[in-house]
Amino acid sequence: MQRLDSRDPDFESHFTRLLSVKREVSEDVDAAVRDIIAEVVARGDDAVIDYTRRFDRLDLTPDTIRVSAEEIEAATASCSAEALDALALAKARIETYHRAQVPADHRETDALGVTLGWRWTAIESVGLYVPGGTASYPSSVLMNAVPAKVAGVPRIAMVVPTPDGVTNPLVLAAAKLAGVDEVFRVGGAQAVAALAYGTATIRPVAKIVGPGNAYVAAAKRRVFGQVGIDMIAGPSEVLILADSSANPEWVAADLLAQAEHDTAAQAILVTDSDALADAVAAAVEGQLKTLRRAEIATASWRDYGAIVRVARLADAIPLVDRLAPEHLEIESHDAEDLAARVRNAGAIFLGAHTPEAIGDYVGGPNHVLPTARSARFSSGLGVLDFMKRTSLLSCTPEALRALGPAAVTLGRSEGLDGHARSVAIRLNL
Amino acid sequence: MQRLDSRDPDFESHFTRLLSVKREVSEDVDAAVRDIIAEVVARGDDAVIDYTRRFDRLDLTPDTIRVSAEEIEAATASCSAEALDALALAKARIETYHRAQVPADHRETDALGVTLGWRWTAIESVGLYVPGGTASYPSSVLMNAVPAKVAGVPRIAMVVPTPDGVTNPLVLAAAKLAGVDEVFRVGGAQAVAALAYGTATIRPVAKIVGPGNAYVAAAKRRVFGQVGIDMIAGPSEVLILADSSANPEWVAADLLAQAEHDTAAQAILVTDSDALADAVAAAVEGQLKTLRRAEIATASWRDYGAIVRVARLADAIPLVDRLAPEHLEIESHDAEDLAARVRNAGAIFLGAHTPEAIGDYVGGPNHVLPTARSARFSSGLGVLDFMKRTSLLSCTPEALRALGPAAVTLGRSEGLDGHARSVAIRLNL
Repeated sequence: MQRLDSRDPDFESHFTRLLSVKREVSEDVDAAVRDIIAEVVARGDDAVIDYTRRFDRLDLTPDTIRVSAEEIEAATASCSAEALDALALAKARIETYHRAQVPADHRETDALGVTLGWRWTAIESVGLYVPGGTASYPSSVLMNAVPAKVAGVPRIAMVVPTPDGVTNPLVLAAAKLAGVDEVFRVGGAQAVAALAYGTATIRPVAKIVGPGNAYVAAAKRRVFGQVGIDMIAGPSEVLILADSSANPEWVAADLLAQAEHDTAAQAILVTDSDALADAVAAAVEGQLKTLRRAEIATASWRDYGAIVRVARLADAIPLVDRLAPEHLEIESHDAEDLAARVRNAGAIFLGAHTPEAIGDYVGGPNHVLPTARSARFSSGLGVLDFMKRTSLLSCTPEALRALGPAAVTLGRSEGLDGHARSVAIRLNL
Repeated sequence: MQRLDSRDPDFESHFTRLLSVKREVSEDVDAAVRDIIAEVVARGDDAVIDYTRRFDRLDLTPDTIRVSAEEIEAATASCSAEALDALALAKARIETYHRAQVPADHRETDALGVTLGWRWTAIESVGLYVPGGTASYPSSVLMNAVPAKVAGVPRIAMVVPTPDGVTNPLVLAAAKLAGVDEVFRVGGAQAVAALAYGTATIRPVAKIVGPGNAYVAAAKRRVFGQVGIDMIAGPSEVLILADSSANPEWVAADLLAQAEHDTAAQAILVTDSDALADAVAAAVEGQLKTLRRAEIATASWRDYGAIVRVARLADAIPLVDRLAPEHLEIESHDAEDLAARVRNAGAIFLGAHTPEAIGDYVGGPNHVLPTARSARFSSGLGVLDFMKRTSLLSCTPEALRALGPAAVTLGRSEGLDGHARSVAIRLNL
């Protein structure tokens, strides 16, 4: 963890370094992924089965690639009532929040007689990638599938690798709860390729969403164009803006909730209080002693953690906008005022009683958010990611007469005489 | 041009081939682009100046990279009043249409006392790439810059190459009219790199939009992540759905307006009338004789054009959805009904008096639309592309008490004890 002070003369260079640190290990997997995709395109299910045997140590047949409804039922039945209740609460709240995002169609006829507007339609089919192993999170299934369902996507096909045949029952329960239509026990670049190009067992989809490892990310980049993809998720991050009113143990717990995700995660505290800065630093060390994922969190906090001292919290706003954090917590009596002045953040958590983890699970907003400073230009996952807009235009003969000459002029000025003619021919120009 | 009939037994295989034809020449420019970007990152303006000398045969200094306000004024003054009036009409209509797209913020407090919602903010700065030479279209400047201004983007920096020093005055006039803040006479991968990473003269932006050649497209793919990008535009395409009521000369003119764009453009007629099919085929040949860009249009129509005969126009809907055309024209008395049943199209032009070229210039909707079947999963350019959404969450102590236990349960079930602790510590759980 490094400590910076915005009043130091060399602060700018230190802060710029904090901004530009590359936290992601870029494994060079692109050549391998290219081959895997080509194999799946050429050999379909057979290639998927071969790669699953090699990477997941699991023997599949075309009949067992898909997880049956009975298996999903059995997995759900094996979950604790407490966990299922918590999932149901999360699902209901996520659904309510995202319903408010459903966009309106628009249509009007203007004074010239031009009818124009747009129409939103759901994407016809979506593939949802869910990682296997320890990063197999039922909450992420809900965060991806529920907005798709709210958007009206008729078909959601989920892929989840089950290394050595091990499935997370709560992931299957979440899929059932969210209304996922098909579940396939395959993962990696081969699953992405199957979703993009289709096999005899896995019909192709129009868009693929969901997080994954370096192979999955590289495969998504490669199939982009053939299908749509969501953002490429990077390591998670939190920036906590807190004044002396904040409880240092709570702040420390929130920093560590971020740091425990990944050794490349980043947790930053920005404060106007030396006392809080010192107390949080101490509390982090204390809490690390009893954290189950202490090894991961220690590395993250050591390598990427920071405490930044500013003269006044308002001075932090330009720093926040430059960092554009995925998660921004504001623990200050001025939380609302400060939040209103921030331009770049994926999500803002206001006040001391809103730990970011509430947003991860049961708040209602989506937990799939832009990382690595991409909140400067992109948004968290939402209903709009599962819909697309078609513009509509209709002219009466009179409207065409009113607008046509300008179109002819512009077409000719661009050297596109065929454009001009397609208008002029209707007007006898 | 090929003719298909949906009633033929081998139609499906022909149609599948039509769907999968690769129209884009994928030049292998990625290695060159990688080097150009690295040079611009390392040497800034000097590298931009060197590449501009090499590729555009133009000697620049740091003082002349930016086009001055006086030059923009002089260029505007040199345009015809007719062209400027047409541009002004286009700008006003584009602005009105896109104003209706400005999204609403949302905030509510639910029964538990959780305040939640979201807030939209404009992207802080946008780079607009405008091609030079013959594909330097003033209409595209408006279509990119106006929605950005409507979104509230505070800074739009435009780059446009001026090979041999030649500028299109109407492009500069469009930039002025649309409120572009800065114009730089550079292009290619070097301009994209300068916008993404910044130089002494060109401050970096948060997102880059606009079409370009293979170098520009490869550079945009490479800088994605550092900045946001819009879609990668492919060759343009139109699908015209027409019955026997359509005027074959008008349909032919619309097909050729598409075909004249690019030898890789695609124009398709789908009809239930043999008479119309024959008449349009003949009219295309006739009109090609007098088209200024006949060479380009002839190649496009020959290689990628198609006339598809269907038994009833309603049978064409599934074909339209599979092709997901950038532009869909419907010339039929049933136009509204047919349009309502289409899921995948970038823009729909309804009725015989709405040639697609009206939408290219003065209709109001955006002419930057998804190509190459990407209308299955993406939308045309709009105000939302220049804004991003930040989610908001705020819990009262009571709300945290109500929601916290479920979050603790889910955190523990995912093995993320630090997440669970950040909630539990506030509730003394």
